[in-house]
Amino acid sequence: MIYLDFNRTTPIAPSVLEAMKPYWLTHFMLPGQDHAHAQAVGEALENAREGVAFLAGCEPFEIVFTSGGTEANNLAVLGTLARQDPGHILVSSLEHDSVIGAATSLVSQGWEIETIACQTDGTIDPELVARLIRPTTRMVCLQLANPVLGTIQPVREVADLCHNRGVPIHCDATQAFGKMPVDITSLRADTMSISGHKFYGPKGSGALFVRRGLHLSPIGFGEPREMGLRPGSENIPGCIGLGAAATLAAKCAGDVEIGISDLRDHFANSLISTLDGRARILCEDSPRLANTLAVEMPGDAKRIQRTARQLAVATAQSDAPPDETTRALRAIGMTSAQVGRTLRISMGWTTSREQVDRAIELLADACDGIVAA
Amino acid sequence: MIYLDFNRTTPIAPSVLEAMKPYWLTHFMLPGQDHAHAQAVGEALENAREGVAFLAGCEPFEIVFTSGGTEANNLAVLGTLARQDPGHILVSSLEHDSVIGAATSLVSQGWEIETIACQTDGTIDPELVARLIRPTTRMVCLQLANPVLGTIQPVREVADLCHNRGVPIHCDATQAFGKMPVDITSLRADTMSISGHKFYGPKGSGALFVRRGLHLSPIGFGEPREMGLRPGSENIPGCIGLGAAATLAAKCAGDVEIGISDLRDHFANSLISTLDGRARILCEDSPRLANTLAVEMPGDAKRIQRTARQLAVATAQSDAPPDETTRALRAIGMTSAQVGRTLRISMGWTTSREQVDRAIELLADACDGIVAA
Repeated sequence: MIYLDFNRTTPIAPSVLEAMKPYWLTHFMLPGQDHAHAQAVGEALENAREGVAFLAGCEPFEIVFTSGGTEANNLAVLGTLARQDPGHILVSSLEHDSVIGAATSLVSQGWEIETIACQTDGTIDPELVARLIRPTTRMVCLQLANPVLGTIQPVREVADLCHNRGVPIHCDATQAFGKMPVDITSLRADTMSISGHKFYGPKGSGALFVRRGLHLSPIGFGEPREMGLRPGSENIPGCIGLGAAATLAAKCAGDVEIGISDLRDHFANSLISTLDGRARILCEDSPRLANTLAVEMPGDAKRIQRTARQLAVATAQSDAPPDETTRALRAIGMTSAQVGRTLRISMGWTTSREQVDRAIELLADACDGIVAA
Repeated sequence: MIYLDFNRTTPIAPSVLEAMKPYWLTHFMLPGQDHAHAQAVGEALENAREGVAFLAGCEPFEIVFTSGGTEANNLAVLGTLARQDPGHILVSSLEHDSVIGAATSLVSQGWEIETIACQTDGTIDPELVARLIRPTTRMVCLQLANPVLGTIQPVREVADLCHNRGVPIHCDATQAFGKMPVDITSLRADTMSISGHKFYGPKGSGALFVRRGLHLSPIGFGEPREMGLRPGSENIPGCIGLGAAATLAAKCAGDVEIGISDLRDHFANSLISTLDGRARILCEDSPRLANTLAVEMPGDAKRIQRTARQLAVATAQSDAPPDETTRALRAIGMTSAQVGRTLRISMGWTTSREQVDRAIELLADACDGIVAA
């Protein structure tokens, strides 16, 4: 199988799995007791936190481990707003369900959620955000990179204008880590989400960056862990794995990005010429992730996927309620028919030129079969 | 090191780790896409759910995977009560922080939390619960087994009297799985929590039993998973590991229980005779977990633990706020001095008679040193 769905999930890196191993059978204890093993585990946990902090460009004490990106997004939105009087929240139309869902859960308490429309090029216009901010705006949510279109948002510009108006900004960066440099110092968001399984870390691992001095409320209850922001026994192997994945990404992602970017351009050019121009790359002129291609094909994308069985790519799965792919494509103004024709191709660190060439053949054959039928 | 703190956490069983392995590197995909690998992962997830359901004595669709016992307890309490008008909740004095914390978080919304006092033998009296239930009582929380005292609660009797009054009951059974038979059909609780790392499964894994027909609200928001009760990409290796641990426990726990029970009695008798009667087993005549001994020692428990450095046992760690150990010991009427003298010894499937005999020597030596000093 040729797997080109890395934006959905990645395999774990072998070195990450290796780093986790001692913490299942040998150092299986939890921190917080008096014996030496427990202390060693506590130190390893803090080393992992340093690894994540280094990748994100923050201090270790600004990193809160969670069970994944969804929990991190929930904690950012609900934890920031928990103790505030109801007001206005701005959420970009490209946000993940876990951001929109958390914000929407507050409507019954009197909060107003407003969507920041996306431009047809797949980006959010900072000037629009500036116009939408009100005196009652309590939070702005803007992702760093879109998983479907690959477009990169002007988080820094939006953060600056938010801060000028005294509004905190949450950045869902789960799709960016391992694919582009992410430095919270220059992005200037107040909270930022990280998901392990999006960049060769373990599933069930994630983290939230919480800027020093920001007071969030926990959204779960129990024995206090993670600076009081996340209760429950730590998933030690998961945290260690996230730390190892972060260290790996800090070391390798920059080099890999250049190679993947070349591969993506080759994929795009070769696919379009093979299909005699009957395919279209979406948001091609926008700042984009190096690994992602959203392509409008000349036939139904689900049929193409089912015909090209050796290939794993992503298609829109549900119209009502719209899934992530459908929402992103609608946000840039595509019709239902266009959404149905769109494939999302996302490459990984291990994707080879041979795989890309074979994928193009498979896609072209599938298109021919469908158009001929 | 002699590890006698299995109620805090267990190592993963080698066969559980083995079962998880394919899902990191080979079958790393997530369910819900059209390709064969994703379908295989979906099937494995449902097999794991069947394993957990078999151990708990319920139907697979009554099992919701979570990130652990804390999240399961939070979901049970907050999910059950989310859409109800504020009322009265009964929580036993022995409950875990994640049960008490979830209930207490509702006080600001007008809920009243009342504690069910524990008897000096470490059990809850069903007649007391019957007297405390009011027309406004919306939920009763009663754990199955206490992690500190090992005492087993009359969940069935309390469940019956709750249901006679139309009140749902949540049972935190996280300390019981792998140590005693747990059959939800005979326990009759409406929700029941499970934690993987308490019975040789992976950390970061857990589940909530939700009786069919019961309508809970999710406490997290995002892409709907787990029958709409738990959002976010599934921690596939964690769920597979929980299923494998459940299958292992269903097969082995019964046999192991008998052996551990003998070992516990040997430990108790031998320790007391070695210390010339200067130690006391708590709640000795109550129904108890086979693996757990709470012992009042003739000296300060933390000093004993520090002296017997090769031994990992549990002691009270914090007086204010009281930790789990302190709360359980206070609940049976112990003074602060007695709490400070109490050790919790919890054995595992791998604990040997040699380890027990050596532990007794180490404890006796430590006591002698402390009393002589």
